[in-house]
Amino acid sequence: MPFDSIVYQPIGHVRSPHREPRPASEMRQTVCEIVIDPAYVVGLEGLAPGQRVLVIFHFHLIEGYRLLQHPKGDPERPERGIFALRSPSRPNPIGVTEVDLLEVRGSLLRVRGLDALDGSPVLDIKPA
Amino acid sequence: MPFDSIVYQPIGHVRSPHREPRPASEMRQTVCEIVIDPAYVVGLEGLAPGQRVLVIFHFHLIEGYRLLQHPKGDPERPERGIFALRSPSRPNPIGVTEVDLLEVRGSLLRVRGLDALDGSPVLDIKPA
Repeated sequence: MPFDSIVYQPIGHVRSPHREPRPASEMRQTVCEIVIDPAYVVGLEGLAPGQRVLVIFHFHLIEGYRLLQHPKGDPERPERGIFALRSPSRPNPIGVTEVDLLEVRGSLLRVRGLDALDGSPVLDIKPA
Repeated sequence: MPFDSIVYQPIGHVRSPHREPRPASEMRQTVCEIVIDPAYVVGLEGLAPGQRVLVIFHFHLIEGYRLLQHPKGDPERPERGIFALRSPSRPNPIGVTEVDLLEVRGSLLRVRGLDALDGSPVLDIKPA
């Protein structure tokens, strides 16, 4: 069954000190911000500090992928299928990360635990 | 900062007995299948029964959304922002569900716990 492409419009973007890829475990230590597009700010109502939320974002710097990859890029480890890995280089480079919501201030969410680079488009936010 | 649209190509689709929306809790009881497009089947290598995986899919029957909605469509409950809800009627109707992987057979994955309707395009699969 062939499928049409699916088109999404980002609802905001990530503002982070991380501009270059780092191990996800390291990036998750950092507090960063999600800037929501003014058109969607009403949709934040009910989000409150202390909640765990899922952030769905686009790995915008990824170009291309291989269906078999070494886990964590380590050539010592045997290759595995991309759907058994969390590598960002994947057919549809979608990141899904559960984060701690620290603050909601107007169109800004301050979060801890997000492994997204600065400028990453955000597609969705929902309760974890 | 304005953003361009993001375009994804489905990697497969859901085959489920559910053809009409039902409460997610009810749909998750059902065993259903994910049919992977032949071009991506190599990417399944390393997935094995017993694993928990995240399925990222498109709510393909959704048309439109409101930024404020009653939780579970219950008018008795005060409206809340869409990003504080898991309603499928959202700006980018992306479903993210953790499922039990029961079987991998060629291009077919049998899973339990997926709240996706029959025919839903699947965008990604990754270890939970």
